[in-house]
Amino acid sequence: MNKSTVKSVGVIGLGSMGMGAAKSCIRAGLDVYGVDLNPAALEALGNAGAKAVATDANQFAKELDAVLLLVINAKQVKSVLFDSGLAANLKPQTAVMVSATISAQDAKEIEAGLKAHDLIMLDAPVSGGAVKAEAGEMTIMASGSLLAFDLLKPVLDATAAKVYNIGEEIGLGATVKIIHQLLAGVHIAAGAEAMALAARANIPLDLMYDVVTNAAGNSWMFENRMKHVVDGDYSPKSMVDIFVKDLNLVADTAQDLRFPLPLASTALNMFTSASNAGYGKEDDSAVIKVFDGIELPGVEK
Amino acid sequence: MNKSTVKSVGVIGLGSMGMGAAKSCIRAGLDVYGVDLNPAALEALGNAGAKAVATDANQFAKELDAVLLLVINAKQVKSVLFDSGLAANLKPQTAVMVSATISAQDAKEIEAGLKAHDLIMLDAPVSGGAVKAEAGEMTIMASGSLLAFDLLKPVLDATAAKVYNIGEEIGLGATVKIIHQLLAGVHIAAGAEAMALAARANIPLDLMYDVVTNAAGNSWMFENRMKHVVDGDYSPKSMVDIFVKDLNLVADTAQDLRFPLPLASTALNMFTSASNAGYGKEDDSAVIKVFDGIELPGVEK
Repeated sequence: MNKSTVKSVGVIGLGSMGMGAAKSCIRAGLDVYGVDLNPAALEALGNAGAKAVATDANQFAKELDAVLLLVINAKQVKSVLFDSGLAANLKPQTAVMVSATISAQDAKEIEAGLKAHDLIMLDAPVSGGAVKAEAGEMTIMASGSLLAFDLLKPVLDATAAKVYNIGEEIGLGATVKIIHQLLAGVHIAAGAEAMALAARANIPLDLMYDVVTNAAGNSWMFENRMKHVVDGDYSPKSMVDIFVKDLNLVADTAQDLRFPLPLASTALNMFTSASNAGYGKEDDSAVIKVFDGIELPGVEK
Repeated sequence: MNKSTVKSVGVIGLGSMGMGAAKSCIRAGLDVYGVDLNPAALEALGNAGAKAVATDANQFAKELDAVLLLVINAKQVKSVLFDSGLAANLKPQTAVMVSATISAQDAKEIEAGLKAHDLIMLDAPVSGGAVKAEAGEMTIMASGSLLAFDLLKPVLDATAAKVYNIGEEIGLGATVKIIHQLLAGVHIAAGAEAMALAARANIPLDLMYDVVTNAAGNSWMFENRMKHVVDGDYSPKSMVDIFVKDLNLVADTAQDLRFPLPLASTALNMFTSASNAGYGKEDDSAVIKVFDGIELPGVEK
């Protein structure tokens, strides 16, 4: 396999993960082209040293050796690549790393669309949160051809502490990410349920948090998200509606595989109730607000 | 408060936690008296330097400055203290540290029984697993009088890396432990659900384990227990039936507090089904065996 000649990358979607990944690529010496609909994000990335920024990737499509998509869902991936005409404008054999959390089925449909334009896809969902994205230390769970991994090596090296090669078949990366999200979502909902019960039992929440994070009941999500509950700070780091989306992808996967998921389906109900109660745009820890009959720091009932 | 004069401790219940705690007390220079019904456990503790071992604590009741109970449930605590007559035989003002996982209601009943014999209770459940118990690094979540904490300081110092003082009221320690067990139980069941879905999707389980343990979907329990699934080793470190018991304590607590627990009740159903299917005495990771239609390492269907 030849050494990758990728020198420029278009990063599409400059939310907390995309912005961190784009800055990591700049630090690694790549020419970064940033794309988002939010002018503030474009300005921030421009100030961080991007080669160019725009609300539409088509204007610098011919400059790109690779594309990294960190948008919200499959609909946005398809809109950017196919509805806007980007796939038709990219150079043949450009590597496209699709890092949104999407279903295996959508990943396969996107691959077919890219193949029609002689483009090479890596099915490459990410994890780790904004801090790790900023540090260039995301976890990437990827599937695709060896050529796709090779071409994208500079981008993977720049953005990830750990890259898993799940296999050649597009869709495997998506599935591993979805199973990961099952755990992440259930852990947030379980953390909320436990802290709500503690509030009901008049246990100080900061003490409960301290005990759990020093004992075997801890999870990455409990430690990260229940701090927001203790602090009464529901400003969105990642929103409730993201887990409504992701746990619905989990449910779709279960349906496709004809498999029961008693806990994930329960957690989905909790996030969906929280969204319907008006907390969809708050931090995902706001799922705790589905519980009535308790007092929480910083929450008026 | 005077410096504790506790020099001897009876450790009752020499399972994985009690044995570790007893050995830690011996290393700390305390005179340790070990009690269990299992002769092998008694022999092991005798070889480790216990002052004496017996199947009944009454024979050395007068030698004890403190008692540490690490038995399975409230019924055993009550049987040891009250049915066997130990509470009547202990010296007045002996400190009794009750470290079984029990309900707040049981903790209060036990306190009343001890008070009738002029004994001092610490409501002091523990967490951390066998390895931390062995190292003298348990996490202890305790409630009780300052006198109880002071008297038991040598035992707490010997056995715990971290001691939380939840408050004076007996029952608070028990409640914090139960809320902790809600998380521990849900995390094991969620880990099993995720790994079962991975098996159904033909994702190699060792790879799935590796991804999760390096990403935000991780939990202490996932990392510890799902290794057993990857290895196909269901020899009991902690049994399914322990979580049937503990999640029933969670359910009792929810009933007392009139509070809904959608995830914990679902996890209880999973562990109860696993027990009824014949896996009650296997490692608690065997809750994954409630899922049909998958192949697991080391499991014949």
